[in-house]
Amino acid sequence: MFAKVLVANRGEIAVRIIRSLKELGIKTVAIYSTVDRNSLHVQLADEAVCVGSEHPQDSYLNMQNILAAAIGTGAEAIHPGFGFLAENSQFVEMCEACQITFIGPRSETIELMGNKANARMQMLQSGVPVIPGSQGYLTDIAHAKAVAKEVGYPILLKAVAGGGGRGIRRVANENELTLAYEKARSEAQSAFGDDRMYLEKVLENVKHIEVQFFCDNAGHRVYFPERDCSIQRNKQKMIEESPCQFLTQAERDQLGAITLKAAETLDYQNTGTLEFLMDQDHNFYFLEMNTRIQVEHTVTEMVTGIDLVKLQVKVAAGEDLPFQQEDIKILGHAIECRINAENPVRDFMPSTGTIDYLYLPVGNLGMRIDTDLYAGGQITPYYDAMIAKVIALGEDRPAAIEKVKRLLAELVIKGIDTNQKFHLGVLNNPDFLAGNVSTDYLEKEFLTKWKRRESDATI
Amino acid sequence: MFAKVLVANRGEIAVRIIRSLKELGIKTVAIYSTVDRNSLHVQLADEAVCVGSEHPQDSYLNMQNILAAAIGTGAEAIHPGFGFLAENSQFVEMCEACQITFIGPRSETIELMGNKANARMQMLQSGVPVIPGSQGYLTDIAHAKAVAKEVGYPILLKAVAGGGGRGIRRVANENELTLAYEKARSEAQSAFGDDRMYLEKVLENVKHIEVQFFCDNAGHRVYFPERDCSIQRNKQKMIEESPCQFLTQAERDQLGAITLKAAETLDYQNTGTLEFLMDQDHNFYFLEMNTRIQVEHTVTEMVTGIDLVKLQVKVAAGEDLPFQQEDIKILGHAIECRINAENPVRDFMPSTGTIDYLYLPVGNLGMRIDTDLYAGGQITPYYDAMIAKVIALGEDRPAAIEKVKRLLAELVIKGIDTNQKFHLGVLNNPDFLAGNVSTDYLEKEFLTKWKRRESDATI
Repeated sequence: MFAKVLVANRGEIAVRIIRSLKELGIKTVAIYSTVDRNSLHVQLADEAVCVGSEHPQDSYLNMQNILAAAIGTGAEAIHPGFGFLAENSQFVEMCEACQITFIGPRSETIELMGNKANARMQMLQSGVPVIPGSQGYLTDIAHAKAVAKEVGYPILLKAVAGGGGRGIRRVANENELTLAYEKARSEAQSAFGDDRMYLEKVLENVKHIEVQFFCDNAGHRVYFPERDCSIQRNKQKMIEESPCQFLTQAERDQLGAITLKAAETLDYQNTGTLEFLMDQDHNFYFLEMNTRIQVEHTVTEMVTGIDLVKLQVKVAAGEDLPFQQEDIKILGHAIECRINAENPVRDFMPSTGTIDYLYLPVGNLGMRIDTDLYAGGQITPYYDAMIAKVIALGEDRPAAIEKVKRLLAELVIKGIDTNQKFHLGVLNNPDFLAGNVSTDYLEKEFLTKWKRRESDATI
Repeated sequence: MFAKVLVANRGEIAVRIIRSLKELGIKTVAIYSTVDRNSLHVQLADEAVCVGSEHPQDSYLNMQNILAAAIGTGAEAIHPGFGFLAENSQFVEMCEACQITFIGPRSETIELMGNKANARMQMLQSGVPVIPGSQGYLTDIAHAKAVAKEVGYPILLKAVAGGGGRGIRRVANENELTLAYEKARSEAQSAFGDDRMYLEKVLENVKHIEVQFFCDNAGHRVYFPERDCSIQRNKQKMIEESPCQFLTQAERDQLGAITLKAAETLDYQNTGTLEFLMDQDHNFYFLEMNTRIQVEHTVTEMVTGIDLVKLQVKVAAGEDLPFQQEDIKILGHAIECRINAENPVRDFMPSTGTIDYLYLPVGNLGMRIDTDLYAGGQITPYYDAMIAKVIALGEDRPAAIEKVKRLLAELVIKGIDTNQKFHLGVLNNPDFLAGNVSTDYLEKEFLTKWKRRESDATI
């Protein structure tokens, strides 16, 4: 096992990783930007190294400085968390060159799955159903027209180098296509330095279902119960649950088998997630693969009782998976709400400031709040607005919802605006309670109603 | 199910019960003494009624005022928590007379088990092994001498009306017995209004092992994995674990069968705990029965994933147990440290004051802190010094210990003294880690060493 690990991240995920490392008896190194010098992850780590200014390019994306910090402190491995350098294959190559273990998949896997058109093709070859669309990238406008006609409008033009909801343009019909294609290419060129595009049919009324899997270096592979992440705003997940209340065990097994086949084809190491869209007939379509731990891994941890970050570290250190597929049990139903520093009433405007008062409702069974908040801490404008994850495990979905509602009602964060009340609105909504929601539900239906009611309430 | 329940307690257990009631959709009524008006249990409850002054006799033991509060608010049931009125059979009778459900066993059961000499006899008749000693109470000094001679010195003289470590006198030989017997009787008379005594042989090098059980009104009975509560000071538990690392599954099953037999004989309803002493040959001896939820029920909840307070409420409302014996799984190893407002360096002197700053390390899997602390809250001298329970669940005992150590190291409570550092001392002690401890370990061995080291460290 490693003696010392550097955590190349900040915020709640850095805190979460440091805590698991401590429990494994591993010394921890934090990195931080100048503006984060008093952050909780810095306070909790055994050592901390400043790697640059508040601008991510200078610090949390500064590969040279981060590697220098690892070498200087004698860290044997780097955990990237999510975001920042977690899916940067160049950084992984640099770690490999420095003989520092990158806690994640090999650089080739990250590179292959980072090209979204290639990932589609790779999945298709592994027998994973994909969204109808182009095979590989589009060679020219004639190619785009032909594929769009074949799959049917509306379609999405997507940048090969995009991902995570970026570089996407919706096209309603052939008349719009020529102009859209040129505009999308030039946008992609300036955003990603790569103007290649691919296209997919728009699937309506779909849920976002994803399957996390784990592979050790000895070829053992397992998958975890699926997560339903259909409650999204701006393509960002807001609420995640596990398991999906509508999947049968046979569907779960089938989805798991597809996922493990894909992982096997890639000779995957460590953990990753296959994201799918599920239509109303329960057909699944590959959306993308995340080659890292995700924000919402926490619901899987709660519903299975397995610490996935500890497992990442153990597997990266060469240990075999300590359990088999049949040992992974569903202990109930877990639900997570992402708390953002933002004001939902003012169009989700980000909020910054000092945490004047904090009450974390930490008691009773089946609860967890992952956060780097503390009374007196600062929320600055430089990083992601997500500041906490409130997670509940119940014996079933209604029990989990009641628990997370209680936690949100008791949680007190003063000094900044948060989306706590907005979450409570969703959690009390009959459509949500019935599970009668798709990925565009929040924006198409809920938001207008909620804003009206909220402004009524505040008059 | 009940629409409204009154919680006849204060502190962390009142908060813990109110939270489970909320998750069941039940309205909650708190009671409070004048000095507790800003306490967390009052803030969290839907309604709160002041029942008297800061002195427990005036408020939390004031049966008339508490029943009046229940009737006045329309509460259909009362949850007593532990301590105060939880084992007061007269209060249970009064509830029954007012047609308010007491969430616990029937008054006859509480009365029978409250008389410790009767409880011994009752257990003996149910086939539960008891500590060698008198059958029933001692009629006179000649009787005491005869029994003591038969079982062998040293012996403990115990008040029939005692329990929970009170009213006990150790006697080393027959020369001491006559005087001790008279003194103990007169003490018992003034403390409990009952001078009847019984005696038990002193068992050396024993562990405290206890088994919680649950019975619904339809005659279904289950037991939970045992708790090891051998780390005690002044007969008060400080650290509890589940399961006991030294018990085989066969011993666990046997102890469970004995427990269920006792519960059946008593026609027991709701939950209770059989406490045993276990000697080095794994012989078990009945110590006493607690006819209520205990402080340490939380380790059982963590290690099984079952909310025992919700279960108490459901069973009291007439529901059947929703699972069977074979559904109760051991999910790992759980450990709890009781955080007291006291100064271990100054002979555990109680500490009071305002909580100036509080940091509760709430993240990651398998943790829980049950407490009514909040920043700005008060610790007054009127009630029990226990202010929080820090609980960790790990895949095995070493993992659970590492986790609870991390939690204790991160927990920040400013404004009062606590025993956090003392706990860390125990948790790092090789004897504790090896499980090489008996109920008198802390006082006989650990405390002297710890005080010496602690005073060295503070020079």
